[in-house]
Amino acid sequence: MKIIGTYLSPYVRKVLVVLDLKGLSYEIDPIIPFLGDERFAGLSPLRRIPVLIDGAVTLSDSSIICQYLEDRYPKPALYPVDLADRARARWLEEYADTRMGEVFIWQLFNQVAINPYVWGKKPDEAALAKTTTEEMPQVLDYLEAQVPQQGFLFGDLSIADISIAAFFRNAAFARFRVDTERWPLTAAFAGRVLGLEAFARLKPYEDRLMRTPIPKHRSVLTEMGAPLTSETYATVTPRRGIMRI
Amino acid sequence: MKIIGTYLSPYVRKVLVVLDLKGLSYEIDPIIPFLGDERFAGLSPLRRIPVLIDGAVTLSDSSIICQYLEDRYPKPALYPVDLADRARARWLEEYADTRMGEVFIWQLFNQVAINPYVWGKKPDEAALAKTTTEEMPQVLDYLEAQVPQQGFLFGDLSIADISIAAFFRNAAFARFRVDTERWPLTAAFAGRVLGLEAFARLKPYEDRLMRTPIPKHRSVLTEMGAPLTSETYATVTPRRGIMRI
Repeated sequence: MKIIGTYLSPYVRKVLVVLDLKGLSYEIDPIIPFLGDERFAGLSPLRRIPVLIDGAVTLSDSSIICQYLEDRYPKPALYPVDLADRARARWLEEYADTRMGEVFIWQLFNQVAINPYVWGKKPDEAALAKTTTEEMPQVLDYLEAQVPQQGFLFGDLSIADISIAAFFRNAAFARFRVDTERWPLTAAFAGRVLGLEAFARLKPYEDRLMRTPIPKHRSVLTEMGAPLTSETYATVTPRRGIMRI
Repeated sequence: MKIIGTYLSPYVRKVLVVLDLKGLSYEIDPIIPFLGDERFAGLSPLRRIPVLIDGAVTLSDSSIICQYLEDRYPKPALYPVDLADRARARWLEEYADTRMGEVFIWQLFNQVAINPYVWGKKPDEAALAKTTTEEMPQVLDYLEAQVPQQGFLFGDLSIADISIAAFFRNAAFARFRVDTERWPLTAAFAGRVLGLEAFARLKPYEDRLMRTPIPKHRSVLTEMGAPLTSETYATVTPRRGIMRI
């Protein structure tokens, strides 16, 4: 099985955690989506990462991939058995992918990491202030009303826990810390889920990539023994070769 | 079962067609999402339509709703049995909801219908020209490579056919006609799917609403015998009371 997409993406992280929990091994081509070549665009018409290649099946969109993995490799189950809970878990996954995607990635992470280190653009401080003082709190208020005091959202670990937690790694990359007085349940929940081995095993790669110029991502991952593909779908190099924050 | 959301939305249309095909009856509160009240925002945190209320289960997001309906009311099946086809059908649904949503709704339909008749803003002619000469053709090129010469995408009718076709009704509302010389398969496919009874039964309501000021939507639908809820989640009226094009 092959995955195309960088360890720094919350959508890639979600799929890698699901693969790990299901005991499935994979190789990864850790590209930044903006730098994918035309073959990549052919596999992922919306230029989304990750892409999964499982034999003859090629899929993009992390939610579609995770549901496919659940259908094909059902153990352990990562979608609740109760149909109402299952629908609610999918909704929280959608909320994470869409709304946390907008705020944690396309606003926060984009301003402090992607804009400066991929495109060489300065952060927009006014936009960033609005994100951290208005948009992030709105998302955290919503989550605070959803997450449990202990354990996971639907008893056993599910796709909802994984999807939500994945975004908090990117918040940490952007040096955003959740106020534990204001959102105690959410802060504890994110810490609990990110502490799982399947997330913890990815952390050294993520931390290293955050300190490594993009053109060197492959070589440092090779040094670290990451399960890389031999081929890559990235061909261009970014304007500035670094994504350090 | 209750549905909240106007007949003019492709996302509402998708769910109503699924309900019809599964033989499930429903009542509808046909609101425009911009005009939903605070209770609506509570049910649909991203203010999306439709919302489904099925006993104790309340869901938003049309894809989550359709998958829930399939899980709870499996006959007739609207997701392919083969796991690769099923994943591919979900992908095409996602492509429709996301990319066709951007281009057919937030660009085309927004410019020619929502902006002028909900917000009283003039269409942006330059943006509209870009949509019809660049973005719509790109989507149609993609679809032309996916759809079959005859029948449906995966043999039996599936969620993929329904999701894609639903957007072509809004294209027609906006007087966009698919060039049958340039995209013959797509034009024929959309016509074939929209010709199904489950779509055809909705058409009189849609056509009438397109010629009716928004504050009168409920009363004309009552006259027509549509299955309306007694209560509504809309409280405000739009700046201009019309959505005629």
